[in-house]
Amino acid sequence: MKDHFEERIKKIRSRLKDSDTGAMLVFKEENIYYFTGFHAKDSGSILIITGKEIFLIVHFIYFEQAKKTVGVKGLNLIEFTANGFEKFLEITGSIGEKIFGIESNFVPYDTYIKYEEALNKKGKKLKNFPHLIEGLRIIKDEFELSMIKESCKITDAVIKNIIEMDFKKITRFTEIGLSVCLEEMMIEMNATSKSFDLVVANNEAASFPHYRPSQNKIRQGPILLDIGCVFANYCSDITRTLFLKNKPNRKIVYPENKNDNNWSEIYDIVLQAQMAALQKCRAGIACSDIDAVARNIIRRKGYGKYFGHGLGHGVGLEIHEAPKLSYTDNTVLEENMVITIEPGIYIEGKTGVRIEDMVIVKKNGCINLYSSPKTITIIGQ
Amino acid sequence: MKDHFEERIKKIRSRLKDSDTGAMLVFKEENIYYFTGFHAKDSGSILIITGKEIFLIVHFIYFEQAKKTVGVKGLNLIEFTANGFEKFLEITGSIGEKIFGIESNFVPYDTYIKYEEALNKKGKKLKNFPHLIEGLRIIKDEFELSMIKESCKITDAVIKNIIEMDFKKITRFTEIGLSVCLEEMMIEMNATSKSFDLVVANNEAASFPHYRPSQNKIRQGPILLDIGCVFANYCSDITRTLFLKNKPNRKIVYPENKNDNNWSEIYDIVLQAQMAALQKCRAGIACSDIDAVARNIIRRKGYGKYFGHGLGHGVGLEIHEAPKLSYTDNTVLEENMVITIEPGIYIEGKTGVRIEDMVIVKKNGCINLYSSPKTITIIGQ
Repeated sequence: MKDHFEERIKKIRSRLKDSDTGAMLVFKEENIYYFTGFHAKDSGSILIITGKEIFLIVHFIYFEQAKKTVGVKGLNLIEFTANGFEKFLEITGSIGEKIFGIESNFVPYDTYIKYEEALNKKGKKLKNFPHLIEGLRIIKDEFELSMIKESCKITDAVIKNIIEMDFKKITRFTEIGLSVCLEEMMIEMNATSKSFDLVVANNEAASFPHYRPSQNKIRQGPILLDIGCVFANYCSDITRTLFLKNKPNRKIVYPENKNDNNWSEIYDIVLQAQMAALQKCRAGIACSDIDAVARNIIRRKGYGKYFGHGLGHGVGLEIHEAPKLSYTDNTVLEENMVITIEPGIYIEGKTGVRIEDMVIVKKNGCINLYSSPKTITIIGQ
Repeated sequence: MKDHFEERIKKIRSRLKDSDTGAMLVFKEENIYYFTGFHAKDSGSILIITGKEIFLIVHFIYFEQAKKTVGVKGLNLIEFTANGFEKFLEITGSIGEKIFGIESNFVPYDTYIKYEEALNKKGKKLKNFPHLIEGLRIIKDEFELSMIKESCKITDAVIKNIIEMDFKKITRFTEIGLSVCLEEMMIEMNATSKSFDLVVANNEAASFPHYRPSQNKIRQGPILLDIGCVFANYCSDITRTLFLKNKPNRKIVYPENKNDNNWSEIYDIVLQAQMAALQKCRAGIACSDIDAVARNIIRRKGYGKYFGHGLGHGVGLEIHEAPKLSYTDNTVLEENMVITIEPGIYIEGKTGVRIEDMVIVKKNGCINLYSSPKTITIIGQ
């Protein structure tokens, strides 16, 4: 049994014991991976962890993969072809436990009711544990931190590659073509995939806080890159807003020939906000307080209404996980949480800037996992 | 209002009326798109369709996109920054409807309870409509069929590109490198993305019915490609198992130097099964019956236990949607359903073959959306 799986299983067993719960049902794929090492998208797998045993019910088409990736000694791996629910019934019929914890924040209502009715018929019942496992996952162990660091290294290198790219090469790409090129770079550096649909947003497109790259050719002007990869199941996430131009000595003013919303002015405000939040980031501070640090800077400069999303989010097996860095989340940061810090200003129809790093929270500060430059960076030279 | 959105809204309104339900709450992103034209991943949007009005509640970061993509006249677009639920409360407070339909097959248990409690407080209630909208989506309209055809054309062309590729070029790729190259080809042909994690499985890897491409270099031998793209929100899905070798005259025997499980023998069985199922495919036949056609052929040849998944699935806005072509699904096929037909044989540790087409079900047969060759195809020549 790999040490980190053993540790995590111990933890959940102790939580179950503390709340007089015999077993935990796990449906969410990232949570199944967290305890077993087996990770498959929408596979319909079911994990049952009791005080003494572990059962993993896996469909035929994932069975060979499960056999190869499960890292837990003594785990009972069970194959199904048509119906995993029937296997679940067999197992719950054969074990003594009466109360089954369930991820009520995740399992669809109808599925929940189906399992509840089946258990009730046997004199057993469900008990809700919303976000219990996500609550364990919020603090990363050493193994996780090392995987996350590797994942960030890859995306850091990809950003640096783009910074080095010359004007002719970059303007041959469309936004979406460049996004696939970035993914290719990640894969070449041993990522297994991108961790979300990569954002390449040029000029006006940067004003969409969440943008789908288009078939438009890359042109001179701001270019916002929000990218991430998956390395050994762990995600990374970085944003840089670069400025592409082929005339080195020209002053950066964007939008061109308009007096309002000078791009480099906005850039500086976002960077100030991001740096201030990074400086404030340490164990013991509430998420909403760090959010406020960045938000107040942007607000004071008159751009408050153009920063309509939270400051950041946790990253790990999922690209978005707990905690949420927003003015509504009072979670207090703890050591070895991994979060993004990513303020932005978006001016509809004109342009936008976002700057994002990922950090490990420590007692007296945080470790920034990225070293790509953040001062205004002219590319294409 | 675009005609197809209008038609679909009419249909859902008529279903609501028939069951004395005042409004439908829609949370699932594909279902929101189906009625509005707005499509965003995990965006937390909420659509409310009443007998007379339509409200779409969208987070700040998707708001600009929503404004540009909504294709329904008179739709009330509402922005939120922190909490969409509060906007939901405001709206349900201001409209007269008492009974709200909900996608109980999709919405997580805790969310369901939260909405239920809030509505109950106002003397209103929820009513479960599992798979109601998916039930409408199962029959594709003319607009959808034309988008799906385009989506298939792109992936058909990608397969043909690979068939043309020479030995040296293809063996320079790793499995995962080739998968990114395939994605790049799709994007160049105007797809917006891949529709699932593409499968490139070489040699023994083809024995995993669901495989993640590795960093292993492509070598001589079978190469299973299961690929799909998204074009204008609609998915495509095709599988071909090709055979890569650089010596044109050598007989295909795989695994080499083993007498059992001759690859081309397995290939022929899968192809026979696939062709027989295609021939049987028409409106009026049950999914389980088509599954049986293919399964019986594979079984009679002694490979029954190596075909452990269903024969196929519906495709549309989602890569896997209703119906399921399996021995447990008695859905009767209807005209303008779009499904895959994809039998396979997987021999653990050795090799595997799967052949997959997508078809439109018609009264007297089906239209195959793919023309990539299916007889044993040697590539790399």
